[in-house]
Amino acid sequence: MKLYDCATAPSPQRVRIFLAEKGIDMPLVQVNLRDGEQLGDAFREINPDCTVPVLELDDGTRISEIFAICQYLESQCPEPVLMGKNALEQALVSMWNSKIEQHGLAALAETLRNRAKGMQDRALPGPLNLAQIPQLVERGRIRTEAFFDRLDGQLKDNTFVTGEQFTMADITAFVMVGFAGWSRISIKDRQQNLRRWYDAVSKRPSTTA
Amino acid sequence: MKLYDCATAPSPQRVRIFLAEKGIDMPLVQVNLRDGEQLGDAFREINPDCTVPVLELDDGTRISEIFAICQYLESQCPEPVLMGKNALEQALVSMWNSKIEQHGLAALAETLRNRAKGMQDRALPGPLNLAQIPQLVERGRIRTEAFFDRLDGQLKDNTFVTGEQFTMADITAFVMVGFAGWSRISIKDRQQNLRRWYDAVSKRPSTTA
Repeated sequence: MKLYDCATAPSPQRVRIFLAEKGIDMPLVQVNLRDGEQLGDAFREINPDCTVPVLELDDGTRISEIFAICQYLESQCPEPVLMGKNALEQALVSMWNSKIEQHGLAALAETLRNRAKGMQDRALPGPLNLAQIPQLVERGRIRTEAFFDRLDGQLKDNTFVTGEQFTMADITAFVMVGFAGWSRISIKDRQQNLRRWYDAVSKRPSTTA
Repeated sequence: MKLYDCATAPSPQRVRIFLAEKGIDMPLVQVNLRDGEQLGDAFREINPDCTVPVLELDDGTRISEIFAICQYLESQCPEPVLMGKNALEQALVSMWNSKIEQHGLAALAETLRNRAKGMQDRALPGPLNLAQIPQLVERGRIRTEAFFDRLDGQLKDNTFVTGEQFTMADITAFVMVGFAGWSRISIKDRQQNLRRWYDAVSKRPSTTA
């Protein structure tokens, strides 16, 4: 197996941390997003949706979309469990991962992509060139700050996002908080549960992956 | 178990079709989205993110987010398999479900919510009131039409979205094409694979659920 990666982007970082937690070592193929390599013909053959990460299996089958990649890796290398030990835990990991993607990561991508000078006509990832919409910059910030409060509430009675076990939902949330820093959105003093959780997760060696 | 539902909304329809394919019968609790019941205090106790569907287990545990709900139902009622028979199939169902959600359903929701007079300040679902952004109406249409071509290409060599088996990815895509009709986006003459697939899926009794 190998992973199409971009060392500077938040999405593939989620899979790299997942791999590090599992102790899986595999070749990482760097795709230069800054220079638009993901939009070139060669990479479109790998993923027509022009995003990284992409997991390529030894038979050439390619899996894009992060949750799908992690599901597959979990099946091939079950320990340590990162996606739930039983059906209910699995559903809660999936549920929280989806909420963090929609209300955190997607909101932050709106803020960044609709503001950055280097992303004109790249308001969304993918093959379409779409103009920036300035109103989305502030809207993304409002949504993210509200979601930080939501996550803080969830962490009030839980050590990790879905309970007492570190899971993929924590990886997604950790990357989300780091990505928020790109837009100078940080954990507020009132969000003490989120702060406690973030400090604890930051100490895991995998988070430098 | 019971399902918080809204008979007129596309998101819970995905779960109702899934239940019908499995032959699972459970109480459906209607939430009146038109009157804003999802934003009231009573429903916020059920799902603070103010969305349906929500699956409530007999012990009171609640699962929101559609993929998570379907994962749980698949585990409790494995036959007929709708989310893949092995790890690779499961990853491909997850991957395609995610692509259809992002590039189809989310794009269509942007088109509808930023245009409809009844959705002023409701540009996104959830607890925040967010103003409509008119540019998103046309952008959502452009994205959806491009994704119809993407899906047509995928269906060129596949009976169903992920291969020869009907899966949850087909349910999501079927609901997406129906939802596109709300914005008068329909399958084009050139999209013959998508047409053939849609006509076949439409004949399944589950799709009236």
